[in-house]
Amino acid sequence: MIVALAGGVGGAKLADGLARVVAPDGLTIVVNTGDDFEHLGLYISPDLDTVMYTLAGHNNSNTGWGLAGETWAFMAALERLGGETWFRLGDQDLATHIERTRRLGDGDTLSGVTAELCKRFGIRHSIVPMSDDPISTMVLTNGERLAFQEYFVRLRCMPRVAGFEFDGSTTAYPSPKLSTVMDSDSISAAIICPSNPYVSVGPILAIPKFARWISERNFPIVAVSPIVGGKALKGPAAKMMAELDTEVSALAVARHYGALVDGLIIDVADQVLAPAIEAEGTRVAVTGTIMNSAADRARLAKDAITFAETLDTRL
Amino acid sequence: MIVALAGGVGGAKLADGLARVVAPDGLTIVVNTGDDFEHLGLYISPDLDTVMYTLAGHNNSNTGWGLAGETWAFMAALERLGGETWFRLGDQDLATHIERTRRLGDGDTLSGVTAELCKRFGIRHSIVPMSDDPISTMVLTNGERLAFQEYFVRLRCMPRVAGFEFDGSTTAYPSPKLSTVMDSDSISAAIICPSNPYVSVGPILAIPKFARWISERNFPIVAVSPIVGGKALKGPAAKMMAELDTEVSALAVARHYGALVDGLIIDVADQVLAPAIEAEGTRVAVTGTIMNSAADRARLAKDAITFAETLDTRL
Repeated sequence: MIVALAGGVGGAKLADGLARVVAPDGLTIVVNTGDDFEHLGLYISPDLDTVMYTLAGHNNSNTGWGLAGETWAFMAALERLGGETWFRLGDQDLATHIERTRRLGDGDTLSGVTAELCKRFGIRHSIVPMSDDPISTMVLTNGERLAFQEYFVRLRCMPRVAGFEFDGSTTAYPSPKLSTVMDSDSISAAIICPSNPYVSVGPILAIPKFARWISERNFPIVAVSPIVGGKALKGPAAKMMAELDTEVSALAVARHYGALVDGLIIDVADQVLAPAIEAEGTRVAVTGTIMNSAADRARLAKDAITFAETLDTRL
Repeated sequence: MIVALAGGVGGAKLADGLARVVAPDGLTIVVNTGDDFEHLGLYISPDLDTVMYTLAGHNNSNTGWGLAGETWAFMAALERLGGETWFRLGDQDLATHIERTRRLGDGDTLSGVTAELCKRFGIRHSIVPMSDDPISTMVLTNGERLAFQEYFVRLRCMPRVAGFEFDGSTTAYPSPKLSTVMDSDSISAAIICPSNPYVSVGPILAIPKFARWISERNFPIVAVSPIVGGKALKGPAAKMMAELDTEVSALAVARHYGALVDGLIIDVADQVLAPAIEAEGTRVAVTGTIMNSAADRARLAKDAITFAETLDTRL
């Protein structure tokens, strides 16, 4: 069993690659729910949707969120009515939020709803929320403590970041399916996808029981650097690192994860950093990490699994 | 001031006619909210929407509900997710429900939300819900007591009707704007639009304070028969009359309203019934009541106002 930790776009791409090379019962994709929020009365779970849409092959690769072939009649009508339009909801995407909200209102859990939606999207691999308990990523900026979507969408990541908090995390438990995986003896590796270390992977690691479990693991953990050539391929990871006075590099990613990861996969563009990272105790694999095609995703997934096998201390 | 009581399609058409011949401050359109219900977590107010869309010129004249030029991407996506699709919500229409639900959730009243939506739709005449208190039309059928939309949409009016109840009506109050109109001395006439007497007009008359007030009025009340040539132009009025062992005719409409109305407008197709109706104490005006065009609506509105003037006992 491979356990993947994923957030948004980059995470979804590698999760999709893993789903292409690992059988459905051999992979559990644990998804960040720290971005989840209520908007227009709807429960919106951006990372779960991005992973789900990506694995279903329906994601919008231009925007990085939402569905391919989306239409916007609802949004245009809402704008005419003076409604809140800063968070864009496509006509088809809206069905996901309405159906999720309805099912949660009927008493189902986020895990249960996610499983049902995945089934409807024809996804055979396990996509599980990190927790069914509410955890809200808060972005500390100079002066204001912002809910994640306020920072990320409404303010377009403009405020300077000073830190992060994950409201609700200290009392949150891993979701039931994640707990079952944690209780099993069959995990061969965990792969931290190239998602934002602070706001995509951070919230997952902020769940105490999960953090304790992963620190006591007996399987290798491999992370894929979301920083390539000093830049984030997508999203504010690089900007956040700079604002937190951290070097924007794969080395800084290695330092950020520290002893948590056994190995870091860095892009060929960063291979000069390999000795420095290894000198600090993290093993390195160098490969192409930019996933422009399905083949790229599958190859990187295979590389990550192979790398983890070489790190397995039990072998 | 003209007060119009309206339900769905037929009511909306005459309300639109009245708005074409009466200045904005001279007309209050009181709309049935007995059909309102919560669906998919949204507060849906079918008659308010039909009247609003019709006065805005955006109604879908093919279906009799919803918006012209509507698209259905949301509904198709919801169907793929296994959601409830028996009540059709168009992509643009959905914005009305989401925005209304959001505003109600923020503490606004149905009256307040309706006023704001009407403003956004560019409607200058007053459309007011009969009440801000919840009133739910229940259809008594042989064996089952059905919520109105269950009967009307899901079961397509198939169950045989035995009666109606208006849950919440006995403790409901007229909406604030309706109350203001009721307290004024400036009403010249009330016009009961050609809406279903049982489930469109009935709920309005089921509000005790309104019923008392209208029975003690000093202005004429004119109704327009929704039955033409023994048939309802739209909706289940004729079917309901037959099931309630009532003759399906304009005469039966006159008997149903009884002393409440001073005059009934019947279609030229029914002019043979005029003597019988007048013999029972209701004055009759005969005109074309089928509203195929905006001109038809305006003409019928003028006819209704003129008829009411001739009935004014104060003149």
